[in-house]
Amino acid sequence: MKIGFLQFTPDFGKVHQNLVKVAGLLDAVDADLVVLPELFGTGYLFRNKTELMNLAEDLSGETAQTLSKVASDTGCYFVAGFAEKDRGVLFNSAMLVGPDGLVGIYRKSHLFDTEKELFEPGNTGFRVFDIGAARIGMMICFDWFFPESARSLALAGADIIAHPANLVLPYCQTAMPVRGLENRIYSITANRCGSEERGGQSLAFTGRSVIVSPKGETLAVGPGQGDSLQVIDIDVLLARDKKPTKRNHLFEDRRTDLYRL
Amino acid sequence: MKIGFLQFTPDFGKVHQNLVKVAGLLDAVDADLVVLPELFGTGYLFRNKTELMNLAEDLSGETAQTLSKVASDTGCYFVAGFAEKDRGVLFNSAMLVGPDGLVGIYRKSHLFDTEKELFEPGNTGFRVFDIGAARIGMMICFDWFFPESARSLALAGADIIAHPANLVLPYCQTAMPVRGLENRIYSITANRCGSEERGGQSLAFTGRSVIVSPKGETLAVGPGQGDSLQVIDIDVLLARDKKPTKRNHLFEDRRTDLYRL
Repeated sequence: MKIGFLQFTPDFGKVHQNLVKVAGLLDAVDADLVVLPELFGTGYLFRNKTELMNLAEDLSGETAQTLSKVASDTGCYFVAGFAEKDRGVLFNSAMLVGPDGLVGIYRKSHLFDTEKELFEPGNTGFRVFDIGAARIGMMICFDWFFPESARSLALAGADIIAHPANLVLPYCQTAMPVRGLENRIYSITANRCGSEERGGQSLAFTGRSVIVSPKGETLAVGPGQGDSLQVIDIDVLLARDKKPTKRNHLFEDRRTDLYRL
Repeated sequence: MKIGFLQFTPDFGKVHQNLVKVAGLLDAVDADLVVLPELFGTGYLFRNKTELMNLAEDLSGETAQTLSKVASDTGCYFVAGFAEKDRGVLFNSAMLVGPDGLVGIYRKSHLFDTEKELFEPGNTGFRVFDIGAARIGMMICFDWFFPESARSLALAGADIIAHPANLVLPYCQTAMPVRGLENRIYSITANRCGSEERGGQSLAFTGRSVIVSPKGETLAVGPGQGDSLQVIDIDVLLARDKKPTKRNHLFEDRRTDLYRL
């Protein structure tokens, strides 16, 4: 199976222009699954809820349509972060689309910092979608910080965690191998780069998108700055072997009788 | 507060000799808490249950007595791994002893590989002990692999996780910063080094004991080989600030309504 990320720097607010650019970058992609960053079409630093409301889309919007078209043309599945407006309620979401259109969505469970003033906390939970070649779970950016996110997806059967991100802290890229190892799953963190300065706020995004194996290996890394499409070959079955030793099984060994969670 | 580890290589089966050596290494220690490796008095590779039964001790044994004496002499608390025999039942345990003697014990929850043929799975769960200067939680070696261990201790109020280990895989030392970061706690992983060859089995231990901060920083590292006592100064209060940003709190932000654990 071929999986990858498209590290991409959107131009804030120019959704149509960003989508055209992304469709161009992906039009000849040879992969089964490619992950794009969080909020890849809009950018990140919304001045306020009104601005966000005007840029957000529902599942019939231009973002879903564009990605579905590219998926249909290329045979590839995509996971991509977008600003979702569901009957006037705003979520920081990711969509999974394939050659036949929308497969599922995920709404960010753990909102980071000022996102709490813009978005509602996600209500979808950690679901897994079978796309044939693999079972896909989604989480978004800061969700990684909570080990329960990747654990919930792994326990629900995910082989691969698709992880759109807009990372500004330096930790995630070196921490993702631990998420891979402790759950014996693949993960694809698609980060953005560049910076945004809006409404008195300023943020620099850290690039270095990363694909991690169930053995905690870093299989691919994007550059610190600049757009980058990377695709690698993986053996999905490795994620279904939960035994780090002959006598240990990462899920069966869990002591749910003792945990205080 | 001063915390540290004693990285130590036991001579297999020579409990009295190992205890004398450790007492000598610690007799002038200037610290509030020092962690010793898993099974530091016995060694690791027991040929069978009979051999283990003969070397294991209860809480009135020589190991507890020796450490209590050193604690009383130095004013330091110790966490140390030992083979525990409780009315004929064997556990891979850790004791916390202080100037007034035994404070508490922990029995390893997640047994590694052949340990399953020797020890019973721990039944104490993840408890926290207040020693005045800080609240101490214990976990042992392979427990680290399960994020639920450190999480349970942190949620129970631990400031510092004392983590005796006999590590043979290469992952733990680079993963502990993630455990520190995701829970905003200190951890002290006291590993052994050297190797053992017994009963057709052979194991090499990886040293590099490590102290980690609530910000995921590596504060001290032992050598790959050789005994080493290291003590550092920390600010315990840092472990009580669970807010990575003004609007985020690592525990209050948990989405227990969504997790599938």
